Amino acid sequence: MRAAIYRGPREIAIEDVPRPAIEAPTDAIVRVTHTAVCGSDLWFYRGDSDREDGSPVGHEPMGIVEAVGDDVRSVEPGDRVFAPFLISCGYCEFCRKGLHTSCVNGDSWGGDNGGGQGEYVRARHADGTLVRVPERHADDEDTLRSLLPLTDVMGTGHHAAVSAGVDTGSTCVVVGDGAVGLCGVLAARRLGAERIVAVGHHENRLDLAAEFGATETINARGEEAIERAKETTYGGPNHVLECVGAASAMNAAIEICRDGGTVGYVGVPHGVTSEGLDVFGLFGGNVALDGGVAPVRAYAEELMADVLAGTLDPSPIFTKTVDLDGVPEGYRAMDEREAIKVLVRPHGSE
Amino acid sequence: MRAAIYRGPREIAIEDVPRPAIEAPTDAIVRVTHTAVCGSDLWFYRGDSDREDGSPVGHEPMGIVEAVGDDVRSVEPGDRVFAPFLISCGYCEFCRKGLHTSCVNGDSWGGDNGGGQGEYVRARHADGTLVRVPERHADDEDTLRSLLPLTDVMGTGHHAAVSAGVDTGSTCVVVGDGAVGLCGVLAARRLGAERIVAVGHHENRLDLAAEFGATETINARGEEAIERAKETTYGGPNHVLECVGAASAMNAAIEICRDGGTVGYVGVPHGVTSEGLDVFGLFGGNVALDGGVAPVRAYAEELMADVLAGTLDPSPIFTKTVDLDGVPEGYRAMDEREAIKVLVRPHGSE
Repeated sequence: MRAAIYRGPREIAIEDVPRPAIEAPTDAIVRVTHTAVCGSDLWFYRGDSDREDGSPVGHEPMGIVEAVGDDVRSVEPGDRVFAPFLISCGYCEFCRKGLHTSCVNGDSWGGDNGGGQGEYVRARHADGTLVRVPERHADDEDTLRSLLPLTDVMGTGHHAAVSAGVDTGSTCVVVGDGAVGLCGVLAARRLGAERIVAVGHHENRLDLAAEFGATETINARGEEAIERAKETTYGGPNHVLECVGAASAMNAAIEICRDGGTVGYVGVPHGVTSEGLDVFGLFGGNVALDGGVAPVRAYAEELMADVLAGTLDPSPIFTKTVDLDGVPEGYRAMDEREAIKVLVRPHGSE
Repeated sequence: MRAAIYRGPREIAIEDVPRPAIEAPTDAIVRVTHTAVCGSDLWFYRGDSDREDGSPVGHEPMGIVEAVGDDVRSVEPGDRVFAPFLISCGYCEFCRKGLHTSCVNGDSWGGDNGGGQGEYVRARHADGTLVRVPERHADDEDTLRSLLPLTDVMGTGHHAAVSAGVDTGSTCVVVGDGAVGLCGVLAARRLGAERIVAVGHHENRLDLAAEFGATETINARGEEAIERAKETTYGGPNHVLECVGAASAMNAAIEICRDGGTVGYVGVPHGVTSEGLDVFGLFGGNVALDGGVAPVRAYAEELMADVLAGTLDPSPIFTKTVDLDGVPEGYRAMDEREAIKVLVRPHGSE
């Protein structure tokens, strides 16, 4: 099969690789019809994080089940499914309490499982990992585009909102106007927030934030962004969604948060070791830091229900669509911020 | 009046200084009968933090009200009172929600207010700051020794337990066997924890932890302490009380905590800038970091009720008592870990 392969910073190659096969009775093989390029893929793309030369990339697969092992119960060949960015068993202590990212039997995409940006993947622990799309929605292209973000960014934005304690009537600030921040706005609105202040520095993304439910947008950086966010929330909100992960964004979130409030953070931390996290800001104001890597599998069913009901639609974050050969161009477009998020159709539009 | 004054690292002098007077109608003057030396006093004592030469020290005053301003309603001359380590107004947004440490009208002991380790202090915002001891208990020396830790360490240990989410039946680990850690054990027991594992490295303090309700003690450092704490809690508890503040202790607490659990931290952070906080440990395991500087004023009444009922007694943490002239010796004894916490009677035992 053909798949996107990492070949060094800024080098994504489309290569022929072995097609994954059923190895354990709990495996399923999925023919990937839709997937995406993630903001977190840009770190190895830019050389900011290490990745093995020759490793398959991508971690947001959606597709059609091609084959299942003997013990798979929840899906069968022909089913439309999607999967979170991590594989989880579904039955360990952590999966049972909704923290699938800590699954004791968990695994990642890539390696022998295949990366999401390829023609096929092996979904280990298929019953715990795959989410089945009800048949009557399984071939509706618009619906599939709206469901695809549930593999990662929509669940991640939701985790930020949940972790920040957003509830009916809340006032919150969302730091970051990338795909996760935009989904954080959707999530906060869905949870009933009354005021949602989106902070970023891209006019077009902030326009989308407003469409998604932000009641106010702030296009500014650094101290100016912090001051304006605090001023408009009378000193800072009790709930801040940190949707970037950079030390500067985390420290801005801490500074914006009202004393006694909570920062829900979901961006993979980077730069916090060299630049330092503002622990004194947390300590002095009793600001709680909650969140972490988002257990998006835990949120899939409730978010899918809303997508299928037509009350949740994150698909506008996909501003560019490519086929497999277009994946390198997709990375470039995201790296240069021409695209918010790129949708990939490994087998073309068929 | 006479008071303990900071004169440089390891130099505490007893000097004659002006006696504080009523300046605002909300002030009260308190004749300090009991106070203490705090573990946090050791940082400037050791030269680890800056402090102005000539500044009065101490922040845990208990005594008799000597005079009150015209607007003071809750106490009158002759009342036995104690005060938290920070002054708070009692009526701002933060005081009203129990976060007195973020009081917008707040102030510190020291300066013109006098330090706790002196003969008199001025309690600004007396109605918000002072806690009145009911008259029938006001002169019982044993009761007063048991109430004195409510000015700081008992409320701080309680904040660690509350912030860590300790509840009936909880299993928790308390990191640190200093006065705050020991009070954390008392607080966890009081909140109904079923298993309390105290981690430290002083046999006599861990013995006291066991008397206070620790169901298990671990006398070890570093990786060994972490491994033993995790092993005995089947991989880590959901609730960890971090009662030290050093980066190594905070990172140990994060590592000990079960994925999805909460670290309640109350030790003033030190070393986190140079050594770094284990943000990836928090992120990967969705471990929440909650707590901060303890709003001990918020907890004073409920903890006092238990002390007066005889069900809470932190007084064994006082292993040495001195008069005002003995304050320098008290600092030395705590610095060299001869004493857990030193009680000071500025006017002698009278």
